[in-house]
Order: sequence, then C-alpha cells, then structure tokens
Amino acid sequence: MIDRLIKEINKKQNPTVIGLDPRLEIIPTFIKEEYFEKYGKTPKAVGKIFYRFNKEIIDSIYDIVPAVKPQIAMYEQYGPEGVESYIRTTEYAKEKGIMVIGDIKRGDITSTAEAYAEGHIGKVEIEEKSQDIYNQDAITLNPYLGFDSIEPYVKYCKKYDKGLFILVKTSNPNSGEIQDLETNEGKLYEKVGRLVTKWGEELIGESGYSQIGAVVGATHPEQAKELRKIMPNTYFLVPGYGAQGGKAEDLKAYFNKDGLGAIINSSRGIIAAYLKEENRSRFSEHEFSLAAREAALCMKEDLQKNLF
Amino acid sequence: MIDRLIKEINKKQNPTVIGLDPRLEIIPTFIKEEYFEKYGKTPKAVGKIFYRFNKEIIDSIYDIVPAVKPQIAMYEQYGPEGVESYIRTTEYAKEKGIMVIGDIKRGDITSTAEAYAEGHIGKVEIEEKSQDIYNQDAITLNPYLGFDSIEPYVKYCKKYDKGLFILVKTSNPNSGEIQDLETNEGKLYEKVGRLVTKWGEELIGESGYSQIGAVVGATHPEQAKELRKIMPNTYFLVPGYGAQGGKAEDLKAYFNKDGLGAIINSSRGIIAAYLKEENRSRFSEHEFSLAAREAALCMKEDLQKNLF
Repeated sequence: MIDRLIKEINKKQNPTVIGLDPRLEIIPTFIKEEYFEKYGKTPKAVGKIFYRFNKEIIDSIYDIVPAVKPQIAMYEQYGPEGVESYIRTTEYAKEKGIMVIGDIKRGDITSTAEAYAEGHIGKVEIEEKSQDIYNQDAITLNPYLGFDSIEPYVKYCKKYDKGLFILVKTSNPNSGEIQDLETNEGKLYEKVGRLVTKWGEELIGESGYSQIGAVVGATHPEQAKELRKIMPNTYFLVPGYGAQGGKAEDLKAYFNKDGLGAIINSSRGIIAAYLKEENRSRFSEHEFSLAAREAALCMKEDLQKNLF
Repeated sequence: MIDRLIKEINKKQNPTVIGLDPRLEIIPTFIKEEYFEKYGKTPKAVGKIFYRFNKEIIDSIYDIVPAVKPQIAMYEQYGPEGVESYIRTTEYAKEKGIMVIGDIKRGDITSTAEAYAEGHIGKVEIEEKSQDIYNQDAITLNPYLGFDSIEPYVKYCKKYDKGLFILVKTSNPNSGEIQDLETNEGKLYEKVGRLVTKWGEELIGESGYSQIGAVVGATHPEQAKELRKIMPNTYFLVPGYGAQGGKAEDLKAYFNKDGLGAIINSSRGIIAAYLKEENRSRFSEHEFSLAAREAALCMKEDLQKNLF
C-alpha cells in the first residue's frame, strides 16, 4: 500500500490527502433540498446527500490528489444509512483511482480487532464465501491497548497490500495530556513512535517505507522533528493543516530528505472552500467542487513553495 | 445513568453485564439456515441472524441481568446491515428493561468526538429535527487523545442521563506495553485513572458514583486494588471474567466496601454456553438461550459466593 501511495504522490507531485468529512451545514442547499424532498428529514436522505457531495468533490480532484481520508464518525453518527454512504464513497474514490485512508481510529483486544480488521481491510467470511465490506486501502488505529490490538490488522496488510497509520501524536489541543507524559523511556509519544517503528519493521516496501505509518499532527513541528529521527522508515499522516492551525512552513520537519515521508491532510479547508469569506462572491453554491479544486491546487502550491 | 444502573444491579442482586458479541460460528445452525435461505450468504442475512440470536438471549436473561454490552465491531464488520442489527439489538434490550453499554471504544479530536457523541448517546439534528440513532445508555471510550476528546460526550451525559466508561487498564495480554509504562506521575494507567476521576467529579450522582466510569480488566486484580483507591467514586466495567481467565475470587479488589463499584462482563461464556463440552449433552442447539440463562445464573452465584 505504501509503495502504491508513494507512486501516486510522485505522479501527482502532491503529498496531500483530502479529508471527506461532510456535515450538513457545509453542504449546498440545492443538494440538501433535492434529497430531503425525496426522503424527508431522514438519515437516508443524509446518506444520499453526503454521497452526492463527496462524488462531486472526488470528480473535481481525482486527477490532482493521491488520496482521500473519510472520517467515519461523520457517517456512522447517522446509523446504517450513514455507513452505507461511507462505503459507497470509498468505492467511488477507488473507481476514480484515488486511494482511501479510512479514519476510523479503532483500538480493541485481539478477538475484537480481528472483527474490525476483517471488515475494514480484510474480508468477512459468510459460510465460506469471502466478501469485501469496507475495502479501504489503509486505516488509522489507536495504540493504547498494545501490539496484540494491532497484530490482527498486520495479517491483512500483508495479504491484501493494505496500510495502517497508528496514532502517535495527535493534532488536538489536549493531545499532550497523556501523549506528552514523561516516561522512563522518554515522552510517551516517543515511546509509541519507537513501538510503531518496531511493529512496522517487517512490512517495509520497495520504497523503503513501512506499511505501518503514524499519525503526527501538523500542530507539533518540534515533536515531529524528534519523531522523524525515531521513525525514519515510517510514513506520517499529518492532520491539522489549515483549519486546525498547522502552517506549510512548519511542515518541513515531517518530511525526510528524500522529499517523502509525510502526507498532509486538509478537510474543511478544501471541501468547504466555497464558504470561505473570500470565495463567496467568486463561487456560487453550485460551484462548490470547483472551489474545492482550486483550494486543493492552492494547498499543493503552498506545500511545494514552502517545503521543497 | 449510573444511579439507574446501580438500581438495576441492586434490584436483580447481580453485578453483571452480558456481552452480546455474536459470531456466526457460535450461532445455532437452525437460525443460520433460516436466514441464509431467505437472503443468501449476505451481510443482510447475518444482520438478521445476529438480531434473532440476541433477541432470544435477551428474552431469556432480561429478568436476571441488569445490562448488556454489545461489542460494535462484531456488527460493524458486516457494514450497514450489521450496524442496523446493532441498533435493533439495543432497542430491543431497552424495551425489555435492560440497560445497554455500547462497547465502541471511540477516541478522536473534538469536532469528530462531537459527531460520535451525537450519534451514540445524544441526538443528531437533521434540519432542526432531532433524532435518536444508537441511543445507548452508556458507551466505552479511549483516553489517548486527552480531555478534549472526551468533553463532547459529557454534555450528553448531563442532558440525557448517559454514562461513559473510559479505558484505563484493559484485559488483553499486551495491555501493559503502553498502559503500564512508568511515568513521572506513576504508572500510565494510574495517571489515566486519576484523570478519569477528575473528569468525573462534576457528574457524581445520588449513589455517590460518577457517570464517568472506567474499564479495568478482570485479569489485573493487583492493579485494580491500586485503582480502587485512586478512583473511589468511579464505577468499573470489568471485562475478562471467564473466557479471558479472570476468576471470581480475584474480583473482590474491583468492588468498594459498599458492595458496589464494579460490574463484571462475560460474553462468550454466557451466549455460547450451549457449546461448552459439559453442556452439549444437556442442551440442544434449540435451547441455546436456556443454556445462556443457566450460565448467567451460575455466574451470579459464583460472584455472590466469592465476593460478598
């Protein structure tokens, strides 16, 4: 998976991933009206609305962006119809040749992790009939339970060429409360970083990077510098650029000297670009996906100018 | 929520929760055949099978058990139809007067936690129309991201009388890899325990216990003793009894002197009791829910004999 991702990043000359985190309040009225009229103010309508919105965004960016990262919470909160919308979004992105990193942040004991792994990156067996359910290219995971909560996913990384990004240092303001604790093996996030490096050793691809990556928030460039040293062969998935305050000039620390090693996420800043003050007079709500494309190109340029 | 739970525990004289973690391999053939015939070997059939299985288990234990704990992974892995089965199971348990602790172990940044919280214990708003989606009484959460990843749920604990159980020390063999690390504020799980106590302070009910509880695995009685001291007003949700190796005589440490403070989970040991070697000649597969009831009564007796 990581080799495929790097190939896409190189081809599109763009180390970014677009977060597909739809919310009703950022979706154009004309889309909402269409489906609310048909299905009422129901979760079913919301699922259709999200899919329609995502589809137009994907159509508008698939040639310039290597990957999308749907945040499952935005869909899951609406129940089965939300989850269906999540799966259809994943399918559509893959159809258009974009890779999908499912932001699911699961973490549970082995027997439960088995079930998540089968559903999300493996296959479920129904009476000897194997079936894809979520079929993402990679997913995010939480490390709090230790390696036996991660191991069940590793099998599918090997078997189906999938990837993992394990939370190491997250982008939120309170991330330090637990992750920055001083332990007898350094800061907790450094210890987790070393564990992730170790867990990923046997999954290093031709690119020199492991199929087990790490989540390192864009809001912590100092810590990223340390983590980059601890984790030379680990790809960083970096949330927090833009809306959360991470700036391009600070992102150098997340990359290796080969210009690889990190993929930067932006969600709202791209998919809700048409709502930005400065864009309201330039784009009608029917042009929301054009605004998203422009924002994605701006982000690419911003990174290229400041990073390389 | 915690006051309601304690009332149920007292009424039924039974500090246990049954894990509704269905898997195809533990479900009687006669149920599977019925739905596979109707719907093929599909996720839809699996969803129906799980619901039918759970319904019979609930019918058989609702008068003796205060709560059930469905593990969402078992359902989520089958996609939308699995999630629907999860929600219907929750609804049915509540109809029968059993409380539902959703074992979801989510953990994410504030804006995402908001979405999970609305869906799982709050309400989602669709064009000013408020709707219940999962409507569990309580859920489990992961603390790795710090308080701003927990706070969005607290609002709904207050507003709709819901509860949380935060992972402190899990029952799996590798739990110590991160949770047992020595920090400058004691072992990591102790530090997390202190944080959970603090987070729960403003949510203490009439019972003296907080709506914010903790997950403390049955496989760690020594650590539980320490945690009991650190967290006097925190209810412990205790997985790992039975199948994972936790024994009743070791569980005293999880309770306070008032005989309260912990609720012990068993999953497979109850719902798959009819498959136990010693039960195969006593129960036909049509009697799986009778075997579950007997196992639940056995567990209650085992705890009462050894604890009080």
